[in-house]
Amino acid sequence: MQRMKCIISYDGTLFSGYQVQVDKRTVQSELESILEKMHKKPVKVVASGRTDAGVHALGQVIHFDTHLDIPADRWVQALNAMLPKDIAVLSAEPVRENFHARYDAKGKTYKYEIQLSKIRNPLMRHYAYHYPYSIDKVRIEKAITYAIGTHDFSSFCAANTDVKDKVRTIHSIDCEISGDLLTLTYTGNGFLYNMVRILTGTLIEIGTGRREPEEMEQIIAACDRSKAGKTAPPQGLYLQKVFY
Amino acid sequence: MQRMKCIISYDGTLFSGYQVQVDKRTVQSELESILEKMHKKPVKVVASGRTDAGVHALGQVIHFDTHLDIPADRWVQALNAMLPKDIAVLSAEPVRENFHARYDAKGKTYKYEIQLSKIRNPLMRHYAYHYPYSIDKVRIEKAITYAIGTHDFSSFCAANTDVKDKVRTIHSIDCEISGDLLTLTYTGNGFLYNMVRILTGTLIEIGTGRREPEEMEQIIAACDRSKAGKTAPPQGLYLQKVFY
Repeated sequence: MQRMKCIISYDGTLFSGYQVQVDKRTVQSELESILEKMHKKPVKVVASGRTDAGVHALGQVIHFDTHLDIPADRWVQALNAMLPKDIAVLSAEPVRENFHARYDAKGKTYKYEIQLSKIRNPLMRHYAYHYPYSIDKVRIEKAITYAIGTHDFSSFCAANTDVKDKVRTIHSIDCEISGDLLTLTYTGNGFLYNMVRILTGTLIEIGTGRREPEEMEQIIAACDRSKAGKTAPPQGLYLQKVFY
Repeated sequence: MQRMKCIISYDGTLFSGYQVQVDKRTVQSELESILEKMHKKPVKVVASGRTDAGVHALGQVIHFDTHLDIPADRWVQALNAMLPKDIAVLSAEPVRENFHARYDAKGKTYKYEIQLSKIRNPLMRHYAYHYPYSIDKVRIEKAITYAIGTHDFSSFCAANTDVKDKVRTIHSIDCEISGDLLTLTYTGNGFLYNMVRILTGTLIEIGTGRREPEEMEQIIAACDRSKAGKTAPPQGLYLQKVFY
């Protein structure tokens, strides 16, 4: 048996998220279904983590075990030929047999795209959050300074999670405005369920002036989800990279 | 009665083109359906021209007549509130009663997006033509010089058209490569049915070396559709602007 690591990209629009669910179209079930066809038996696919319905991936990482003797570059071709058009395998490489896409992940980068134009852009409706109000980048950058570092991020974690330890380290949050598109790029050692979307919703509220940048410190300290802002919608979120 | 001119944008992916067709979802039928609701009677919408299924618009122009007394900026809000998310009205203005979106159009700009990456980008599958081969921009630019100007473009017109006069003037064709995206931008006084897509398919064949740039001159002179290249697929095409 050979363990394979693949970097994959997908458009989350038409998926009920990454993880297998009965009677739903998910990224994992599409991958496992074509691998089953190739192997004539079920093949388990393990990802670095789940993504929710509507969330996109530019660099999700998965692993699976195979007995097929296929060179790495042919794996890319073979999988892409069989996969639906909204998933693509960007690279494939053989890895040590105990490599684990989730447990070995040392960090991740997510980006969140917000479209600030007054009128919605129909071509971006599945790829950015349309927020037609003015946002002050300086206020967001001030708030970011409080979020960087190692904190208990309970205030930024959706209630429905089993995770006990909510301490995470955010290495950087970048805020860029290009035209009418605001991009927040988050890099950290790990992110709780909905953490990037709740951080984004909170930073937006700070950016518009509904909250003060300094509140970020108190929100983190409160360890209380109700103190943070709204969860930003899924379609603006992209899993950009997983670090090992 | 007041005639209104609107600039609209739409994502062509889920439409069977612009023009009304029985039992099909089209841009025109969506517009006419919400205008009928507002006016309690049928309202005819006239566009600068049709677009095919899958073709996008960033600046399509339409006109219609109304007896409703609504200020121009409120028209934008009212229509966008009722329209589906894949159409947006970007602007609305009252115009003289004999303004005509199609007959008064003096020219148009289209762009065509080609993605040259070896592996397809799932997020761009509806918004660019994936062409995973190398293309020589210099060859395309050479071929473009033959297409600029006033010619009979019969070689670049789909067979199923009623148009008799196939002489058109192309003012400019711009070729830009940014990352793995090649953008061709066409401006002219008018374009025949499928003309931009056939020009694009032909320029791609020239760019890859399957045809010589000089052939462009002979293809135009032949006035024969079979001499030109393939029709590039619809999802890379955008109606960018209409000039009056």
